[in-house]
Amino acid sequence: MTVKTYEDDNIFAKIIAGDLPCHKVYEDDKTLAFMDIMPQAKGHVLIIPKQKAVELSQLEPEYASAVFMTAKKVMAAQRKVFERDGIMQMQLNGAEAGQTVFHYHVHLIPANFHELGKHATTQADMAELAEQAKQLREAIEAA
Amino acid sequence: MTVKTYEDDNIFAKIIAGDLPCHKVYEDDKTLAFMDIMPQAKGHVLIIPKQKAVELSQLEPEYASAVFMTAKKVMAAQRKVFERDGIMQMQLNGAEAGQTVFHYHVHLIPANFHELGKHATTQADMAELAEQAKQLREAIEAA
Repeated sequence: MTVKTYEDDNIFAKIIAGDLPCHKVYEDDKTLAFMDIMPQAKGHVLIIPKQKAVELSQLEPEYASAVFMTAKKVMAAQRKVFERDGIMQMQLNGAEAGQTVFHYHVHLIPANFHELGKHATTQADMAELAEQAKQLREAIEAA
Repeated sequence: MTVKTYEDDNIFAKIIAGDLPCHKVYEDDKTLAFMDIMPQAKGHVLIIPKQKAVELSQLEPEYASAVFMTAKKVMAAQRKVFERDGIMQMQLNGAEAGQTVFHYHVHLIPANFHELGKHATTQADMAELAEQAKQLREAIEAA
């Protein structure tokens, strides 16, 4: 199979560039974490590397490490804020797997995996997401 | 929340120790990859670090990096062997998320995430898994 070529106008590239807004949870020099606006469950966060990688096969080790460190921070904050112990990590490679944005991204979802695909047919309430992002940022800062 | 204490008698610890068999796909000094005997889809592989970590919050960076490198290898082999482009990565933290073995493990599943939880109520055919593991090992060696 041939992996897609990275396209600079995907929505996550625009979010990294600041051309599109997001409900930011965490940012450092190599990663960005923000609320998924089509949440599979309350508190669904996306983590993306600041590398032009379509998927796992293109991700560089230094960015993989950075995503891992950010995921640890975000997961701890999700447990604190949403009072839910189960956090699933999901990362889809290829349209056939369900990938819809072709910039590598990790889903960190306070949910049981049986819940997946049963929600998120509509966009979440933006004020609610903004509040959730704020609570997560505070939890990360306090950690 | 309190993360469980690592228990040395979990089945993945026994597989690493060689006290339980597995259909091995790949092994190096820090990771082991093998066929899931309750596959969510054909070609479902598990990757585990050789570190006593219950879940993400306990995983050390060097083992996270090793799991990432192994996942890249396994994913390329899965695409080649099973001729399926979509590969999903899933990793569950906490019983509430659906984690059942309390040694950190990454699922690498040739599937769409909507398929999850719809299969794997019974154990797979062992001869078939052995053959799949063999094909994956050969694909990894040939890469």
